[in-house]
Amino acid sequence: MTAYTLNETHDPARRSWVDSANDGKTDFPIQNLPYGIFRRRGGDDPWHAGVAIGDQILDLRCAAASGLIQGRAATALAACQGETLNPLMALDSRHWSALRATLSGWLVSGAEVQPQVSEWLVPMSQVEYALPAAIGDYTDFYTSIYHATNIGKLFRPDNPLLPNYHWVPIGYHGRSSSIAVSGQQFHRPQGQTKPADSDMPIFGPSQRLDYELEVGIFIGQGNSLGQPIPLDAAEQHVFGLCLLNDWSARDLQAWEYQPLGPFLAKNFASTVSPWVVTLEALAPYRLPWQRDAEAPQPLEYLESQANRASGAFDLQLEVLLQTQAMRSEGLPAERLSLTNFRHSYWSVGQLVTHHSVNGCNLRPGDLLGSGTQSGPHLSEAGALIELTQGGEQPVTLKNGEQRRFLQDGDRVILRGWCEGAVRIGFGEVSGEVLPVVVDHVTAS
Amino acid sequence: MTAYTLNETHDPARRSWVDSANDGKTDFPIQNLPYGIFRRRGGDDPWHAGVAIGDQILDLRCAAASGLIQGRAATALAACQGETLNPLMALDSRHWSALRATLSGWLVSGAEVQPQVSEWLVPMSQVEYALPAAIGDYTDFYTSIYHATNIGKLFRPDNPLLPNYHWVPIGYHGRSSSIAVSGQQFHRPQGQTKPADSDMPIFGPSQRLDYELEVGIFIGQGNSLGQPIPLDAAEQHVFGLCLLNDWSARDLQAWEYQPLGPFLAKNFASTVSPWVVTLEALAPYRLPWQRDAEAPQPLEYLESQANRASGAFDLQLEVLLQTQAMRSEGLPAERLSLTNFRHSYWSVGQLVTHHSVNGCNLRPGDLLGSGTQSGPHLSEAGALIELTQGGEQPVTLKNGEQRRFLQDGDRVILRGWCEGAVRIGFGEVSGEVLPVVVDHVTAS
Repeated sequence: MTAYTLNETHDPARRSWVDSANDGKTDFPIQNLPYGIFRRRGGDDPWHAGVAIGDQILDLRCAAASGLIQGRAATALAACQGETLNPLMALDSRHWSALRATLSGWLVSGAEVQPQVSEWLVPMSQVEYALPAAIGDYTDFYTSIYHATNIGKLFRPDNPLLPNYHWVPIGYHGRSSSIAVSGQQFHRPQGQTKPADSDMPIFGPSQRLDYELEVGIFIGQGNSLGQPIPLDAAEQHVFGLCLLNDWSARDLQAWEYQPLGPFLAKNFASTVSPWVVTLEALAPYRLPWQRDAEAPQPLEYLESQANRASGAFDLQLEVLLQTQAMRSEGLPAERLSLTNFRHSYWSVGQLVTHHSVNGCNLRPGDLLGSGTQSGPHLSEAGALIELTQGGEQPVTLKNGEQRRFLQDGDRVILRGWCEGAVRIGFGEVSGEVLPVVVDHVTAS
Repeated sequence: MTAYTLNETHDPARRSWVDSANDGKTDFPIQNLPYGIFRRRGGDDPWHAGVAIGDQILDLRCAAASGLIQGRAATALAACQGETLNPLMALDSRHWSALRATLSGWLVSGAEVQPQVSEWLVPMSQVEYALPAAIGDYTDFYTSIYHATNIGKLFRPDNPLLPNYHWVPIGYHGRSSSIAVSGQQFHRPQGQTKPADSDMPIFGPSQRLDYELEVGIFIGQGNSLGQPIPLDAAEQHVFGLCLLNDWSARDLQAWEYQPLGPFLAKNFASTVSPWVVTLEALAPYRLPWQRDAEAPQPLEYLESQANRASGAFDLQLEVLLQTQAMRSEGLPAERLSLTNFRHSYWSVGQLVTHHSVNGCNLRPGDLLGSGTQSGPHLSEAGALIELTQGGEQPVTLKNGEQRRFLQDGDRVILRGWCEGAVRIGFGEVSGEVLPVVVDHVTAS
């Protein structure tokens, strides 16, 4: 484990000369400093990197031109000059720490450089975002035992939790091409489904469209093919975390997923938040990683003292829904569930180590999904299929609408934050379901 | 379907002034002209594109500098100046045709440009190869019903062929990062396996390492997210075919693959051939795509007259093995099996259409694997696990060695070719198993 040492950048008393960073409610106080890719809306600017502070973004392109710094921080800043964060992610974690310390020093109340740095701020209200990284490979895990059990009951009533679950951090490869940043709108997918009362499948729009509340894990430095990453080094290969909605068509999945796993049920869209919160920013919110004494304990390659001591994250995760009718009525999005990443059965470090233990190479900018995060109680379920018990028990919204699965026009919003002496927030990831495309494939 | 019209570039009587292209045995006569990425061994050259002709490579970087051509062919040639074929793949198929016609005209016996073009030839014996494309996403299908049945018997004796097989072109996402070009050497993977006589898994080197004989399909022009590709347009999105070895650790797979599919059992290495044979070169070797009358017929989106008429390929596929002992003894690689891509249960066009029917976007350079190609007879099996019936019946080689699964030092070679008035060959893809890495993960 990388145990980032707590330092002055984490000090809860630290304040910024950017006022909006100090209100106690922002996701982006000076203790956070997450990275993203943005540009001014409506301009000809190329995409470039920035750091969130309050309701502003520090433009790292301008900062790099200043020549204010040297050493590792300067190297890290120079790596932030492209259209993605991949070059920054490819550096080692000492560079990330150095840049964090520098940026924190620039933004702290009383900083001498305030007049210069204030020129590099852009209001969030004026920007649009792109994916933080060019994602080479996307891997989705399955780390919530509550989700695995809930969904297993629906797909395999006689055999909900398979015997390998306690031993193997189950994961599979997902689709990179269809991952987009918050704001993604996608058409309801079509495909094959098999009615329960027929031996033959039918073709048509998915009737059981769902979201999945996930944490995204951006890989930093990679490993060479054939060189596994030991558990105690795993977090040195993690740049940071984001929010991820892994949209799923449950009816397509039920028919296609055996024996090789989900495919068209998942690869039509996945949405990530614009901001990547670094592991260093999350250092005050680490928790012991625990495994019930009566459950099987991990094999040796997934076991370490440091992982036991601080492998988990105390990260609140929330799902909200805003239907088309709610938008028409001017109603805000409504919470569907609230859970915490601490319930994850496997730690982030264990995912990285397991992924590479066979020699598989991870590359900077690769994205790992935690899998749907559901807690032990129904109100903590990270997908509609769980909340509605397979569509049997609809959720009733405050305006009287009901949902078994997502309808066209539904907008799903995920939020995440750590609560403590300061709030380290992830912002949000939103996405919206558009009606099915009717075209020559299906209109014949 | 793109039915490429047969034209003078396909004429079996056509000969090249490159003598080695005319010997009747080469994989690369003037009727083929496959694309690859190469550089002179031991030099400082960047990787660049070339076309195989006999035992030579036409250097497309030099050709582009000549200014000999205009129009679509010139646009296509200009797209061949980078370190990958992705820009060429991204053009529409009329550009590919135009460049093929031009290159064929340059290389045909009696061409006026012979003195100039002969300056751009590099002997294959002097080069090394890179991946033909930057592969964004890699999808592996499962199109051999013989393989699916054979392997299903081993993993699920009571239920070998699942009900969806006849309806769904089963596929899953694989790993891009660990795909390399022919010559790849990789360390035997380690991981979790569960002994039959235990409830607990153990950790260690895979004992059931296997190859998989596959055809690789490189995507050309992509589609936008949300825009499915109809079957009769599908082949316009296919640049060409190659050979693919999807190495597999069967013991890791058996333990990990439920419910989300293969993961560490596959993602440690995959190897492709250096040459991509275009669909236009394969036009004379198309066959009707057939489905037994008693089997379920495809749903409408996977059905077309053109696909029925010529959806299949008459492509011979061969697996050879050379053990370390055989190399020491100076023995050549020995054939393990021979089959034909015509046995595929789904056509290439059906794979592309199915993949995109939910709106999933394909990008130029994406790779689809056909899945292991096995024919109806045991001698046509495309993996050791089938040839040895799950390791029960070892294969005996001519030097007396036996194999149930691959041993360290084994080199597996796949070859492919179309036979007719001329031979359109794919060259070969070879890969070699190195001993397991012993390191701090496992040596503790």
